[in-house]
Amino acid sequence: MIKTLPLIATLGVLAAFPAAAQEVAAPLEAAPAAEAVSADVAYIFDTLLFLIGGILVFWMAAGFAMLEAGLVRSKNVATQLTKNIALFSIAGLMYWIVGYNLMYPGDWTIAGWIGELFSMASLDPVAGADLEGGFSIGSDFFFQLMFCATTASIVSGTLAERVKLWPFLIFTVVLTGLIYPIEASWQWGEGWLYEMGFSDFAGSTLVHAAGGFAALAGAIVLGARHGKYRADGRMQPMPGSNLALATLGTFILWMGWFGFNGASQLAMGTIDDVADVSRIFVNTNMAAAAGAVTAMILMQVMYGKVDLTMVLNGALAGLVSITAEPLTPSIPAAVLIGAVGGVIVVFAVPMLDRMKIDDVVGAIPVHLVAGIWGTLVVPVTNADASFVTQFVGVVAIGAFVFLASLAVWLILKATMGIRASEEAQISGLDISEMGMEAYPDFVQAK
Amino acid sequence: MIKTLPLIATLGVLAAFPAAAQEVAAPLEAAPAAEAVSADVAYIFDTLLFLIGGILVFWMAAGFAMLEAGLVRSKNVATQLTKNIALFSIAGLMYWIVGYNLMYPGDWTIAGWIGELFSMASLDPVAGADLEGGFSIGSDFFFQLMFCATTASIVSGTLAERVKLWPFLIFTVVLTGLIYPIEASWQWGEGWLYEMGFSDFAGSTLVHAAGGFAALAGAIVLGARHGKYRADGRMQPMPGSNLALATLGTFILWMGWFGFNGASQLAMGTIDDVADVSRIFVNTNMAAAAGAVTAMILMQVMYGKVDLTMVLNGALAGLVSITAEPLTPSIPAAVLIGAVGGVIVVFAVPMLDRMKIDDVVGAIPVHLVAGIWGTLVVPVTNADASFVTQFVGVVAIGAFVFLASLAVWLILKATMGIRASEEAQISGLDISEMGMEAYPDFVQAK
Amino acid sequence: MIKTLPLIATLGVLAAFPAAAQEVAAPLEAAPAAEAVSADVAYIFDTLLFLIGGILVFWMAAGFAMLEAGLVRSKNVATQLTKNIALFSIAGLMYWIVGYNLMYPGDWTIAGWIGELFSMASLDPVAGADLEGGFSIGSDFFFQLMFCATTASIVSGTLAERVKLWPFLIFTVVLTGLIYPIEASWQWGEGWLYEMGFSDFAGSTLVHAAGGFAALAGAIVLGARHGKYRADGRMQPMPGSNLALATLGTFILWMGWFGFNGASQLAMGTIDDVADVSRIFVNTNMAAAAGAVTAMILMQVMYGKVDLTMVLNGALAGLVSITAEPLTPSIPAAVLIGAVGGVIVVFAVPMLDRMKIDDVVGAIPVHLVAGIWGTLVVPVTNADASFVTQFVGVVAIGAFVFLASLAVWLILKATMGIRASEEAQISGLDISEMGMEAYPDFVQAK
Repeated sequence: MIKTLPLIATLGVLAAFPAAAQEVAAPLEAAPAAEAVSADVAYIFDTLLFLIGGILVFWMAAGFAMLEAGLVRSKNVATQLTKNIALFSIAGLMYWIVGYNLMYPGDWTIAGWIGELFSMASLDPVAGADLEGGFSIGSDFFFQLMFCATTASIVSGTLAERVKLWPFLIFTVVLTGLIYPIEASWQWGEGWLYEMGFSDFAGSTLVHAAGGFAALAGAIVLGARHGKYRADGRMQPMPGSNLALATLGTFILWMGWFGFNGASQLAMGTIDDVADVSRIFVNTNMAAAAGAVTAMILMQVMYGKVDLTMVLNGALAGLVSITAEPLTPSIPAAVLIGAVGGVIVVFAVPMLDRMKIDDVVGAIPVHLVAGIWGTLVVPVTNADASFVTQFVGVVAIGAFVFLASLAVWLILKATMGIRASEEAQISGLDISEMGMEAYPDFVQAK
Repeated sequence: MIKTLPLIATLGVLAAFPAAAQEVAAPLEAAPAAEAVSADVAYIFDTLLFLIGGILVFWMAAGFAMLEAGLVRSKNVATQLTKNIALFSIAGLMYWIVGYNLMYPGDWTIAGWIGELFSMASLDPVAGADLEGGFSIGSDFFFQLMFCATTASIVSGTLAERVKLWPFLIFTVVLTGLIYPIEASWQWGEGWLYEMGFSDFAGSTLVHAAGGFAALAGAIVLGARHGKYRADGRMQPMPGSNLALATLGTFILWMGWFGFNGASQLAMGTIDDVADVSRIFVNTNMAAAAGAVTAMILMQVMYGKVDLTMVLNGALAGLVSITAEPLTPSIPAAVLIGAVGGVIVVFAVPMLDRMKIDDVVGAIPVHLVAGIWGTLVVPVTNADASFVTQFVGVVAIGAFVFLASLAVWLILKATMGIRASEEAQISGLDISEMGMEAYPDFVQAK
Repeated sequence: MIKTLPLIATLGVLAAFPAAAQEVAAPLEAAPAAEAVSADVAYIFDTLLFLIGGILVFWMAAGFAMLEAGLVRSKNVATQLTKNIALFSIAGLMYWIVGYNLMYPGDWTIAGWIGELFSMASLDPVAGADLEGGFSIGSDFFFQLMFCATTASIVSGTLAERVKLWPFLIFTVVLTGLIYPIEASWQWGEGWLYEMGFSDFAGSTLVHAAGGFAALAGAIVLGARHGKYRADGRMQPMPGSNLALATLGTFILWMGWFGFNGASQLAMGTIDDVADVSRIFVNTNMAAAAGAVTAMILMQVMYGKVDLTMVLNGALAGLVSITAEPLTPSIPAAVLIGAVGGVIVVFAVPMLDRMKIDDVVGAIPVHLVAGIWGTLVVPVTNADASFVTQFVGVVAIGAFVFLASLAVWLILKATMGIRASEEAQISGLDISEMGMEAYPDFVQAK
């Protein structure tokens, strides 16, 4: 009971700011149409938003790579880097071959789906009627592809240091080609969740919690790293090998998030839209700052010490939390939403350890738990969303992604095996899986 | 006398290029208004400039983090990284709660200020009449916030390796919430310096020298690192632990500076404005290149060896130097202004050491000294500026920031203490302050 | 014969997609002009494309620096970093003083060239009639300068770990001031190759192969690193010291390539142009992804192990391959073009070693060989290009750059010497050339 008090207080404060949120929303509808933007100019602006946003979300792939390379032990760094650049590349190919058409089926029948998938045009969705819509289809494809890749990036962090390279990459094939596009189609392909009124602006659930659920399924099937949870119940700390890289990765992710959330406005060809993009930037930044500061203060109060990785994850949790609705909150509401993200991380990280779920970089607290928080809190600032629908969306996506991922992981485990042997883990995946070292010139501590 | 000769020669050459500068300025005024840009399109372009510029200046926070993490010893890296991500987060929150309203008081009376600060609207400056101006207020808030954070980033580098975490963060609260917004309001809030005709395009003095003065006050109160200046008068070299990170940080800062200077044009909704932004990009890049090459050649000539950190700081000093006026100089003038920045670094770094002011990363030479140089040289290429006013601005801002910072540092020293103990410095702040290591897997040299 | 089969098959598949390519091209020509973009708005958009593109290509300089710092041994890192920031700065200055005017002579006579070079205006090409064209000359200068710098960045990687600092920088002066601008003028200065119909969209040959040829000439004159090729014919592996940095560098280059290729469209002020930019982004990304995945699978199949550096170079080779024509290929064609790039790297890297040409980072396979491949394959998707002309262009540029570079390297060798002594190489260039270390706090393996 006592533990839920802060949450209730937070919701109370959030609810106190609907006026501020309304103030923002109102003028947008009544905006003067006097100085209209021509259709061609709007087309260019909207396309440019997708292109810039796409580059920024691309950059998040590098952010995940650096964050994860920094948080694993040095003997697993080369493998972790390989996974990251490979998963991004695979996501690009799979989303092109299957995912994009699966996500936007157009015709919501099995026949329609299959027809779309095997049509010649589906091999070049960018070709053809690119100039007839309100923006370039190529730019949208580019932007959406990056979201698909982000989902996969989340998984690699949790499962680091013990999942074998190729089984992980095969899982990535299924995740980016099938699992992500199917669940994302429910909302962004204007499927049943969209029809129901589900609200997830840039993907707290569709991308982040989904990635987290795929990671959770993998972590359960895979088991913890060798030696992580001792027989006597104590936990063996396995600190990350390079916190400078981890911090760089966090800054990169923070930067990329302006594209992730901002370009999810999908348009900047009117002054309303570009003002909305501005507010999204501000709220995104505020939620991240609040998440970082909250995690930092909480660590100092609870443990008497600040842990840099918690500050980094606090910022990321703030970012994930605001992703479901970065537009309607007032700044104070955004700060509170992000701050709760920071609280979540500080409590969820040790909780996962107590459940003996080994999440190397804290991706489940950051992306899954904070993603759910962000999705469920949307109705407080956005009157068009309902708590019930948000709940249904989270449960449906969570169940589908978790179960589908579980099935894939179990099949992979039964067939080719997914877990590096005890010996391989002790010597490190870099030597055992790849026969190389990330830092060969540096003497490593035993 | 002899030492001032190169300066005089430089000023002479600069003065030889007024024609080139005029050539640039002239057509801008006489530009044809035939093909006008509509108000809405201009609104979108101007807002977009702030958003892109803001992202780039955000990125500079990562640049400072990497530069500083690379230039401190490995035992202080985690603390330095924590300071950097925390100061950026704190800057975001403080600038929102207090700073932004303080910097743009609107009503320049005490009552006006207090009224603004405590109005409900001040908690969401972005809300409301966002569509009535020529650009989104949210985008401007986003951009200005990043400048506030930059000021704080400068301080952390100078004071590294001996200032305690929390006192530093409390100083950051005051700097970003009060000191920076007040001095910046004098110019960018259209205060008395603005009325007087002070000219500081993107903040050589308002941001960089101000950060440098805050750092200088801290360095004096805090004292040098343990063991830095020996009793026998010799200096103990304490080389940075990771020059790859330091170089990365410099490249990041250089990149971010295009946003810092370019978006300070504040508009790109006319062909005049966007052509000005282009010239600013060119001059900014040229000054940086000239600063780097000059420092490199000077090191080779004076010491027979190139020092990478001097080349990096030479580039940064070139960037700071051109920041006060990146628009009016011709390219040759920009090259000379930046080159003098490179000279400044080579001479000011050892000079500070002779004064036993311990500046770990060289932030005072780069940001304070080159910032003053850049501000004072403005009148040579910009006829609207006067040397006297520039001098008054530098002295006023310098005195205010230095004295206010000095007071805060002295209070912090007297109350909670700001200096890590000798033992803590020997074992490193990472262990003593945070109980963690940045590179735990790597064997460190004793 | 058998070895050329895959190539033939690939060309066959590429040829199967002309329809898709035509589909793209066709509507662009027939685009409706109903909702025209005003000249001023187009000016702003086109200028903005150059500015954003220029920042992204600037960023590639950091990417090369990180890639190379990660792939050299730790004892040569500081020197490699110094070379990279210095070469970028030198490129900036040389391209301004000589290169830009040389590359766009306007008047294609010796007198015209000399007149241009020594005119006062040439010292500030940005000044003057900036508002009269369709975009800001300053933004174009900014963008073109970055391409010049990229050419130089390619050379530093190949010659790492044994070329002395100053001779390398003097070569950079000649390369960026004379060699690159002259060969680039043949095409982009509307010289004889342009007249002939040579097609190299963003510079697979003009930038990448050119850099590769300059590097090849240097590698031949300079010789291999001490100890690299043993008397018994075996090769001494000299693994890179920091694969996290190398991966970061690759991500940075991939990101920057969107600017490199995308902004080479040179315009986004019409919906046709911005849709083309979108397709370029998609194709660029797809080619990189295909290159990475192909190299990864090939390594697994051929050697039973994935080598991270091959995956990185596979991505880069994919990027170089698509650079000559990122617009006309359909996505499947882009994937195939990039995949062949990945194949090239896997075969060309060991082939170079067999030829005892020591290329530390694999820049010759990536930039020279894949650059030629990309240039020669253009006619398959672009009906305006002819294989013969492409071949002539590659040979002409290759011969000119190789021979000019060879001459400069030989002169430098004969006069000041270019090769660090055996002892210097053993102790590392950082100590021997610069008297400093990149990672002084870390204990290095012997």
